Amino acid sequence: MQVYDLIIIGSGAAGLSAAIYAARYRLNTLVIGEQFGGETALAGKIENYPGFKAVDGFELMNVIKEQASALQVQIVESKVIALTRSEHCFELTTDKNEVYQAHEIILAQGAERRRLGLPNEKELTGHGISYCVTCDGPLYRNKTIALVGSGDAAVKGLNLAAEYVEKIYLIVRGKEIKADPINYERMQALGEKVTVLYETEVTEAMGKKQLEKIILSKPYNGLSELTVDGLFVEIGAVPNVELAKQLGVELDEKGYIKVDTMMRTNIDGVFSAGDATNHFGGFKQDITAAATGAVAATSAYEDHKIHGDLCPWHARPAMNT
Amino acid sequence: MQVYDLIIIGSGAAGLSAAIYAARYRLNTLVIGEQFGGETALAGKIENYPGFKAVDGFELMNVIKEQASALQVQIVESKVIALTRSEHCFELTTDKNEVYQAHEIILAQGAERRRLGLPNEKELTGHGISYCVTCDGPLYRNKTIALVGSGDAAVKGLNLAAEYVEKIYLIVRGKEIKADPINYERMQALGEKVTVLYETEVTEAMGKKQLEKIILSKPYNGLSELTVDGLFVEIGAVPNVELAKQLGVELDEKGYIKVDTMMRTNIDGVFSAGDATNHFGGFKQDITAAATGAVAATSAYEDHKIHGDLCPWHARPAMNT
Repeated sequence: MQVYDLIIIGSGAAGLSAAIYAARYRLNTLVIGEQFGGETALAGKIENYPGFKAVDGFELMNVIKEQASALQVQIVESKVIALTRSEHCFELTTDKNEVYQAHEIILAQGAERRRLGLPNEKELTGHGISYCVTCDGPLYRNKTIALVGSGDAAVKGLNLAAEYVEKIYLIVRGKEIKADPINYERMQALGEKVTVLYETEVTEAMGKKQLEKIILSKPYNGLSELTVDGLFVEIGAVPNVELAKQLGVELDEKGYIKVDTMMRTNIDGVFSAGDATNHFGGFKQDITAAATGAVAATSAYEDHKIHGDLCPWHARPAMNT
Repeated sequence: MQVYDLIIIGSGAAGLSAAIYAARYRLNTLVIGEQFGGETALAGKIENYPGFKAVDGFELMNVIKEQASALQVQIVESKVIALTRSEHCFELTTDKNEVYQAHEIILAQGAERRRLGLPNEKELTGHGISYCVTCDGPLYRNKTIALVGSGDAAVKGLNLAAEYVEKIYLIVRGKEIKADPINYERMQALGEKVTVLYETEVTEAMGKKQLEKIILSKPYNGLSELTVDGLFVEIGAVPNVELAKQLGVELDEKGYIKVDTMMRTNIDGVFSAGDATNHFGGFKQDITAAATGAVAATSAYEDHKIHGDLCPWHARPAMNT
């Protein structure tokens, strides 16, 4: 069994940014992540992280990881399957049967964008398939895209994409679009730039290294194939809150972890950061994940000053044991 | 007179990050800054901005500025001396008698750390003199530093610095230290690592390219000179809120701009970001400034969709006029 001051669960932008700050606060810190780099690492080219005109998401996360590692943060790739609390002391178990204990916990497991479930969706993510218009819209200047979704986020994404692209096919599974009136009206004002294909699904994404076309469940203009440069998927996200639930951490009405302005949850010693939280509402970006990670680490440090010697295992031989 | 969708006042990390996002939202955006790069540009070596293991603050701001410029953001170096509002339309005048109008405003003028007012304080900032232990503490591993201040922030900074440095002289102007009990107790527990010099001020900082020693107003151990590697100044900060006041923007009890979780102020069409705001409490970092800038731009964009055509000058010949 290994004991740390702080364990951060999640190794995306939020978790590793928290690790950098925590290590600088001299907290003995472990990061456990199932998928290195989180959504950022899968994003492909990133142009809206201040400080990088353009950077590959995986590369950005590699730099941030090195930054944390250089500060003696331990990083392991495992899935946490159980997380328990006894007073202000936490114990967790991984799928590899590792057991770790800590005084403070930061939950930073992000949210997973809902995928379409196409065979080669993962391979083409960042190569024509995207889950974020704010991030990737500008890459499709004067191009043709399809956008899947029917909610307000989808229509907002469409309106923003319209600033760049030449033509948008909005692919709606059902018979109607459910968006805020203002966003719906803006979409209507786009006229022929937008074609809505109702009761239609994308059944396949074609292309080897780059998306070339999609296959529709219902032919459009007599054709099942639609040639597009980009496919945006805006069908929601699911925050990873299984461990939060195990601890009794309060969630908001949409299922995200409720945090206060300093990224504290309702449970003493448990903090959260990044896309799994309700901070900054629905606005979830690499830069906000990194910032909230820094804040969560700061709150964990403040907490550690008060509660850092309460656990039975406290009498350990100092740092890095 | 020039008309923009959005004017951002302040060209530090918050303002220029807001500009990147605003431009990507296709808002016709102007940044007016008095001092390019804000506090970040003056910080010297930065090691806690996720994505850069180490970067000079001025260089980091240069990259962020280029990132914004590449998106057609206009950036001018002027001081805004008047800012008025008529309904949802704003007009401002600079010290060079330029007049600009906009539908939305982001206030991002930061806060100025209180300086000691020493003759060569500015030259040695980032070269031995620092205003942020969280940022620069790790640079002084096993070194000797002096820290000026007597409030809670000073003592918290001292406790953090103690994780790195060998010896700290706390220089207190008056007869007492006013810190939270927990922080005061932690300082006391540091024992001989800390020497408190009461009723003492720093009257001079010596050194050409790098700080070498400081001169004290009251001799210590019979000597007015104190050899130190670093001088941390923790005597508070003053947010730049003059223009906010002109608009009637609400401030919190410490004088910072009150924002909600989406960086909206109490005035329609006015948003704020970075160190001038009360967001994330007293925790003010480059990464949080950049993130709140991105959020403020997002809120300005949402606002613009609703109010962007209400001003008398709206009938202008599209973007980039």
